[in-house]
Amino acid sequence: MSIRLIDGFATTAALAEVFSDAEILRAMLRFEVALAAAQARLKMIPQSAAAQICKIQSIEASSLAEDARASATLAVPFVKALAERVREIDPGAAAFVHWGATSQDLLDTALILLLRNAREILSEDHARLSRQLRELSDRHAHSLMLARTLLQPAPPTTFGYKVAGWFGAVERSWQRWSHAFDEALQLQFGGAAGTLASYAGRGPELAREISKELHLADPRAPWHAHRDRLASLVAQCGVYSGALAKIARDIALLMQHEIGELSEPGGESSAMPNKRNPSGCVVALAAAAHVPAFVAAFLSAMPQEHERAAGGWQSEWPTIAGAIQATGSALAAIADTIGRLTVDPVRMLVNIEATHGAVFAEKAAMLVGNAAVKEALKEKTLRAALAPLLTPEQLDNIDHPEDYLGAAEFFRCRLLEN
Amino acid sequence: MSIRLIDGFATTAALAEVFSDAEILRAMLRFEVALAAAQARLKMIPQSAAAQICKIQSIEASSLAEDARASATLAVPFVKALAERVREIDPGAAAFVHWGATSQDLLDTALILLLRNAREILSEDHARLSRQLRELSDRHAHSLMLARTLLQPAPPTTFGYKVAGWFGAVERSWQRWSHAFDEALQLQFGGAAGTLASYAGRGPELAREISKELHLADPRAPWHAHRDRLASLVAQCGVYSGALAKIARDIALLMQHEIGELSEPGGESSAMPNKRNPSGCVVALAAAAHVPAFVAAFLSAMPQEHERAAGGWQSEWPTIAGAIQATGSALAAIADTIGRLTVDPVRMLVNIEATHGAVFAEKAAMLVGNAAVKEALKEKTLRAALAPLLTPEQLDNIDHPEDYLGAAEFFRCRLLEN
Amino acid sequence: MSIRLIDGFATTAALAEVFSDAEILRAMLRFEVALAAAQARLKMIPQSAAAQICKIQSIEASSLAEDARASATLAVPFVKALAERVREIDPGAAAFVHWGATSQDLLDTALILLLRNAREILSEDHARLSRQLRELSDRHAHSLMLARTLLQPAPPTTFGYKVAGWFGAVERSWQRWSHAFDEALQLQFGGAAGTLASYAGRGPELAREISKELHLADPRAPWHAHRDRLASLVAQCGVYSGALAKIARDIALLMQHEIGELSEPGGESSAMPNKRNPSGCVVALAAAAHVPAFVAAFLSAMPQEHERAAGGWQSEWPTIAGAIQATGSALAAIADTIGRLTVDPVRMLVNIEATHGAVFAEKAAMLVGNAAVKEALKEKTLRAALAPLLTPEQLDNIDHPEDYLGAAEFFRCRLLEN
Amino acid sequence: MSIRLIDGFATTAALAEVFSDAEILRAMLRFEVALAAAQARLKMIPQSAAAQICKIQSIEASSLAEDARASATLAVPFVKALAERVREIDPGAAAFVHWGATSQDLLDTALILLLRNAREILSEDHARLSRQLRELSDRHAHSLMLARTLLQPAPPTTFGYKVAGWFGAVERSWQRWSHAFDEALQLQFGGAAGTLASYAGRGPELAREISKELHLADPRAPWHAHRDRLASLVAQCGVYSGALAKIARDIALLMQHEIGELSEPGGESSAMPNKRNPSGCVVALAAAAHVPAFVAAFLSAMPQEHERAAGGWQSEWPTIAGAIQATGSALAAIADTIGRLTVDPVRMLVNIEATHGAVFAEKAAMLVGNAAVKEALKEKTLRAALAPLLTPEQLDNIDHPEDYLGAAEFFRCRLLEN
Repeated sequence: MSIRLIDGFATTAALAEVFSDAEILRAMLRFEVALAAAQARLKMIPQSAAAQICKIQSIEASSLAEDARASATLAVPFVKALAERVREIDPGAAAFVHWGATSQDLLDTALILLLRNAREILSEDHARLSRQLRELSDRHAHSLMLARTLLQPAPPTTFGYKVAGWFGAVERSWQRWSHAFDEALQLQFGGAAGTLASYAGRGPELAREISKELHLADPRAPWHAHRDRLASLVAQCGVYSGALAKIARDIALLMQHEIGELSEPGGESSAMPNKRNPSGCVVALAAAAHVPAFVAAFLSAMPQEHERAAGGWQSEWPTIAGAIQATGSALAAIADTIGRLTVDPVRMLVNIEATHGAVFAEKAAMLVGNAAVKEALKEKTLRAALAPLLTPEQLDNIDHPEDYLGAAEFFRCRLLEN
Repeated sequence: MSIRLIDGFATTAALAEVFSDAEILRAMLRFEVALAAAQARLKMIPQSAAAQICKIQSIEASSLAEDARASATLAVPFVKALAERVREIDPGAAAFVHWGATSQDLLDTALILLLRNAREILSEDHARLSRQLRELSDRHAHSLMLARTLLQPAPPTTFGYKVAGWFGAVERSWQRWSHAFDEALQLQFGGAAGTLASYAGRGPELAREISKELHLADPRAPWHAHRDRLASLVAQCGVYSGALAKIARDIALLMQHEIGELSEPGGESSAMPNKRNPSGCVVALAAAAHVPAFVAAFLSAMPQEHERAAGGWQSEWPTIAGAIQATGSALAAIADTIGRLTVDPVRMLVNIEATHGAVFAEKAAMLVGNAAVKEALKEKTLRAALAPLLTPEQLDNIDHPEDYLGAAEFFRCRLLEN
Repeated sequence: MSIRLIDGFATTAALAEVFSDAEILRAMLRFEVALAAAQARLKMIPQSAAAQICKIQSIEASSLAEDARASATLAVPFVKALAERVREIDPGAAAFVHWGATSQDLLDTALILLLRNAREILSEDHARLSRQLRELSDRHAHSLMLARTLLQPAPPTTFGYKVAGWFGAVERSWQRWSHAFDEALQLQFGGAAGTLASYAGRGPELAREISKELHLADPRAPWHAHRDRLASLVAQCGVYSGALAKIARDIALLMQHEIGELSEPGGESSAMPNKRNPSGCVVALAAAAHVPAFVAAFLSAMPQEHERAAGGWQSEWPTIAGAIQATGSALAAIADTIGRLTVDPVRMLVNIEATHGAVFAEKAAMLVGNAAVKEALKEKTLRAALAPLLTPEQLDNIDHPEDYLGAAEFFRCRLLEN
Repeated sequence: MSIRLIDGFATTAALAEVFSDAEILRAMLRFEVALAAAQARLKMIPQSAAAQICKIQSIEASSLAEDARASATLAVPFVKALAERVREIDPGAAAFVHWGATSQDLLDTALILLLRNAREILSEDHARLSRQLRELSDRHAHSLMLARTLLQPAPPTTFGYKVAGWFGAVERSWQRWSHAFDEALQLQFGGAAGTLASYAGRGPELAREISKELHLADPRAPWHAHRDRLASLVAQCGVYSGALAKIARDIALLMQHEIGELSEPGGESSAMPNKRNPSGCVVALAAAAHVPAFVAAFLSAMPQEHERAAGGWQSEWPTIAGAIQATGSALAAIADTIGRLTVDPVRMLVNIEATHGAVFAEKAAMLVGNAAVKEALKEKTLRAALAPLLTPEQLDNIDHPEDYLGAAEFFRCRLLEN
């Protein structure tokens, strides 16, 4: 499946595929098959009925989405379609389709299966990004550059330390996100009222069997209207994509023609043959821009009424799929960008020099006081201004960036230890 | 094109079609054709080249979306594909494709054309909803029911007045939204830098011609990085969908089994044969739940850098299409629901009576004071409590809802005058 | 009242004052006084009672906010406090305090009065900003500078045209916002159920009198749970602040040391004596960053239950006051910044020249084709690259920015006509 | 400090105090004092200078907030004020105020200290809520009630299980939030460029000393523009408050007059003496409504430029303080509400019976099939409808709620094990 044009940069082909009609239907069918298989194993339904249900290989999307509007749940037309398919091969077996389960069991578990698929893609891309950032940081451990605060020059740092900062944020955010996945990837199974009453006392036993069947964790209890695990997963999309967007913002700024410290192969312009746009960064920024809103939408939908919500729950699929896809798109774009980044350490030095020592004013202030430096800088370059105030040796070293790096390398290493 | 399953209730088939690949490509092609036709008319490009360009009937989506990631704009692969198609029939004409224009001219104008298409659908559904609300209000001008504040019974009102309140909010919100459409549906045409320099002094003249060609307003100036008109349009989606969601919330609450004043045909449950769910309301609430987040995402993307943004602009398509579709989905659901609503005026009266007069406490308080009523109500029903305090005539009328409607009908009529 | 430190840059002293306890209590008292005065004039309550109520000059905040939590409405402790104050001077008059009105009438109307006060401040600041932008644009009608797209150099424009673009967006957004104020500044008056039943048939007449008393428009009907007018007002805060933030973003970028085309007096750094930070822009960006979220919060609270919400309505005050104050803070910061902006037209030219003609590649492409230019630029500067392809005259003019401005001045003037 | 009226229900008195001017200034002073003390201990500054700095007991807010606008940071006027205070007692010591540190070190660390204070309050309220929910669940382990899905009756459950579901979500969300606090409560200390260059090689050693002084964790490295830890903390406010709002929504719905299963002491109405409003729930819903927007605002501000942001960072204080306070307000309201909740088990049974057995349709369907039940229910009550289809014993038990609870008690106990 390819990306829809209207989705712009909010997904990738791989993630669009994860949430495609075919994959959704596959996941839904997988739940129903696991349910029937488990029920047969526990002798709750006839082995033969389960066998027929398990034979169904696929369900057609046809008009399911439109039909879902009538009952406010995709589960109703899906189960109907599945039962019809089973009925064609064995009328008696059809009655055992979705036996004793509820819409939300089917839809939530299907969603969990899709999220597990998505996680694999994200995990690979994160590993790639993580490795590349580490290498880039090591490679430029001693590439001197301006730190910049409020978009103005500040004392020097190293590009390696800057990259280690990116790495640290991305790595920590991944750990949190990954933990949120661990917590969220659980079976949903509670029946109509969350009590599994339709299975008399055997509900929990059945839940365990289905969990095994699907290789999913069996939760302490059904979580129908309690969406905190998914909410946390979506929220961590927001944190992770924020960390990615910071990288994209930094790179795009350093690619400005007047700064020129970084470049990515970048993209063409339809009008200007000269342009080398920060395409990867733009894609990442465009993708990441969606995520905070998805997080807010998911959180706003959390106060779900009683045992199954009237609206909040039904709003979740586009939100969670949107958050995952947009984050994954930003991730892929940044991983691609870092992998192809060109660094210009000479230009970095030139930009330090172009401040005429002003960025060492802090260093000077530590020696002779803030007021004196400020006064001195009013009319002259730092070196000229400080000549009367410093010893010759101090003066000689005052604007050597390599002598004013503090603990940059120490911090860089600690960040990479992560 | 049918609705994707993952979109849930966030769109309708008709609106999904508006933003489909086919329609996007059609709109983009329409811009390029209008550009060429206008340029030929003004003798800026050869008539023959324009004729060839205008012959192209369609462009294939194929891998355009994936290719767009490389250059961070769909325009680049699209223009390339179009030029190739033209080159096949006339190599010389290919150079005049997209002649002097920029990505943003193409993409923004295409978006505007799509929004115009969407507006027609929304407009029809709004007209339907508006008419139905008016009729429903008139029909129930004298159906007495409890007002409810903080989900507790309050003095009586009429269902007709309640519906008129819905009507008023929806109608006002539509007026604003419609005005925002009027303002936003403008040609985008500024060239690489927003100056139309590639056309020497003839840019504005060309812009006028293209506007005519596309039946779009010609803006005072290109609006590349100035997104306020679109922002206002998206924001009004939020206001309109909020007004719709209020209706859905009210109806779903009045459909509660214990209240039972309204019902919609509603949907089945996959587990419970007895259920009659408020499906239309659920769909509307689920759809409307997306819109505030889309509004925030669009507004957050407004600080677009210089003459074309690096990220903010490129994030807009899914946001604006999402806002329009979700609002349109809520609209369609509410229009359907209102059209099929069953009202139970008897149950409404029963629910008033079930308060044992307590909702007339305000009326009593106007006669004998707040403190006295509060004291009296501690042990008895209102009527018993007030017996010692009122004249027999006052007492007799104290709990007749039809005598305590104030200006309900007056206000109802004024709201419908809108 | 001064700004609280925790509010950071999200308000100004003047706007913090508008929403101070003192002003809120004044507005609430004003409603109650207007109510009593109007009721006395219509002989609904004794003239003497009204006279006593109107004598109360102020109510103490004391523990009102804490007390409000018990009843979920500030109106209850406020009315109690007012009644006690009246009782002290005339026990009989106390019973006529808030006579027949409801919490929401009091609180919504007080909010409207505060918004009217805020509007005056905003209006003045907007007028100042608008005038300054116009002047700045005129002054720099012919200051050549790079347009920049995706943060990369694009063909030249003028600073005057750039400023006119800012002006256009801000001016249009103000018109919308101002219109939203016009629409929203209405009396709220509906009584317990929105029917004004406590006044028998005389509710609308009384509403008219109160409106006159407060110089507010009298709405068609009470709007208790219909928040679309306020929602639109808050949404327009989002659009207007987005337009402001775009200006701040542009200026902060142009103030980068390596670009150096603009500067504002800026702020000191606590560590670096050399720094000249883009303080005004930072304040504006920090302030504007809050507004999209406030808009989403307000829109999310719109589905308010029945005749008075249980939660949504009660959430509005901090949201709407936050949106107004943050927008006003960004406005004040930008107005201050524009008023003190230093423009460096020489540096603007230097930055054009530093592209070595590359930004005229589009111009060249219009003459000799995209592919030829791209090929030529691979190894040489534009001028050298094009030497074999152009006539001497064409070549001579190829990189004169003043010859490649297209309709910049034409568009600039049209934007200022607004 | 009392709650400001405009803040409505978005904070509590205790939390407002945490973020008051006095507490902010105290935290800022505490950082400067810890810095000086640590520097003296490491012999970086004279012991006598540190002693003078440590003598300062407080700084006046006066015009600090207004002054902060000029430099876009509160740190500048604060450090100036502190230095002036020190200068008054010892001119030589003043130069050592804030020695070598940067604005962000001061402001971020002060924020962390405030968050630690807030956490204590939240922690106590959570413990109270948690204990109360557990007790309430145990007390009503066998109180039968309707489950409700899509606001319609579903098969029975127990109130104890319902409460255990609330408990589970709140408890899990607290664990996550608490973990996020653990992670976020770290010293910020990096100096102008994040390298601590002003302390030559001794920065990390100094950081360790300051951490000890403040009883804060020492981070691996300064985290100036990397806000993921705080972002995660704010995001978890969203998840936790969502879990609270779900409880409030459920209770408010169950308090509806027509349902009447729960009640809280609730609040008065200013107009209606009979009203018993769900005040605690309303306060909680109003408070929680703010949090998703704060989360989105924080996440949107994450792409912070280079080593210190121009806007994003400066926007954080109101956002994070807002999120913490609103969540804490919802928490306090729910804890109060649960503590005073009245449960009516008889009414719960009455409401089950009022469905005339319809909620046992699922049970019947498990015995005789979905279609048969649906058909049967068209004209009769469940019992009558099923008479021809079931054995006498089955029929006798068909609508006993206590026989159709499935694993409710099993799940309840597992949720409480947490």
